[in-house]
Amino acid sequence: MHARTEDRIEIESLMKRYCLFFDTKRADDLALLFTADAVIDYGPEVEPIRGRELLREMVASGMATRFESTNHQISNEDVTFTDENSATGTSHLYAWHKYYDSEVIGHLYGGYRYRFVKESNGWRISDLKLYASGSDGFHRKRMHDFRLILEDQG
Amino acid sequence: MHARTEDRIEIESLMKRYCLFFDTKRADDLALLFTADAVIDYGPEVEPIRGRELLREMVASGMATRFESTNHQISNEDVTFTDENSATGTSHLYAWHKYYDSEVIGHLYGGYRYRFVKESNGWRISDLKLYASGSDGFHRKRMHDFRLILEDQG
Amino acid sequence: MHARTEDRIEIESLMKRYCLFFDTKRADDLALLFTADAVIDYGPEVEPIRGRELLREMVASGMATRFESTNHQISNEDVTFTDENSATGTSHLYAWHKYYDSEVIGHLYGGYRYRFVKESNGWRISDLKLYASGSDGFHRKRMHDFRLILEDQG
Repeated sequence: MHARTEDRIEIESLMKRYCLFFDTKRADDLALLFTADAVIDYGPEVEPIRGRELLREMVASGMATRFESTNHQISNEDVTFTDENSATGTSHLYAWHKYYDSEVIGHLYGGYRYRFVKESNGWRISDLKLYASGSDGFHRKRMHDFRLILEDQG
Repeated sequence: MHARTEDRIEIESLMKRYCLFFDTKRADDLALLFTADAVIDYGPEVEPIRGRELLREMVASGMATRFESTNHQISNEDVTFTDENSATGTSHLYAWHKYYDSEVIGHLYGGYRYRFVKESNGWRISDLKLYASGSDGFHRKRMHDFRLILEDQG
Repeated sequence: MHARTEDRIEIESLMKRYCLFFDTKRADDLALLFTADAVIDYGPEVEPIRGRELLREMVASGMATRFESTNHQISNEDVTFTDENSATGTSHLYAWHKYYDSEVIGHLYGGYRYRFVKESNGWRISDLKLYASGSDGFHRKRMHDFRLILEDQG
């Protein structure tokens, strides 16, 4: 086993800073974690977001109009290198959401599936897909099923 | 300090994949994380499970009949090497459980104590013991006390 | 990028053992994670705690009189080295609190900002500040705002 420790640390930092930048309302910083043509799938109720610039706009809009405060906690980060410049990964996620227009807190219990590519200036997220085991008070009802996160290649 | 980074990554991956395989209902994959004679203690209400094959059967049964969906999130993973081919560890755990026969979600706040051994084909879990700080709606009432996780050598 | 993996593992272990020693009521062990003159800021309702010895006393008192059982789970650990012997970091935090004098569980969703220094016998925490995204049933009402954790240099 060659652990590729430095690459692994850099990739896990992408996962972690996604949460940190979301919860500190830094949409610009968050978008820079992704490749220019990244695809982000937050669930079957909405079309996948295509591209870093559209992601930046959507996230900034959500931070301004929907989410008063959030707290995203990932765990069980698992990275597999597929070749020198690409990797896949999964994590679990607990996400806490306080909405501007409601007193009901949204709790989400799920995870993310990731794809990563190494560009000339470092690793970036090229694909992010959100899955749920369950939720309570969350603003979306239908979600990708976490039980299928390892089968799903979509 | 010699960090033994590659061994550490492999051991932490065992902890993480236990959660991932549990929550994706992969009892066969989960059992392969353990040694053939591993001991798994889920609490004082049930006899410890002895052996990988019995664990596989018990977990498969639980996935089929009790747990409709689960989400296990470990954190604070801490590994100590006891010699070249063995290690101990602890983690915290939050586990979310949706049962087939109830609308009440089971929340568990606790942790695991682990023992690991390096076999010819890699590290395995030889001992797993579950502890709780507290719970809400969980299907077991008496649990090993997380406050004693560092004293307990049982 | 030079990952400084061994230093990173040692620093992350400080973060993790803070949680483990808090939840196992080991105030002496917890205090030894800090420098002698460390500053710990648990929120604007109380004066920052100055020094390892005062921290030890405050934590031991809290464990004996306020907190019957706790469970601290950090995630998204992120460490940045500022020079050879110092580093900063952030993490997210979920903390579960059972109080001696109440049936209401306190849930805290937030994080910590850390400063670390390398002393002759290893890395220590020199500064710890607690932030909250939100809480439910928690014993403090006003908290430092997690959304500002990256701006705040206080």
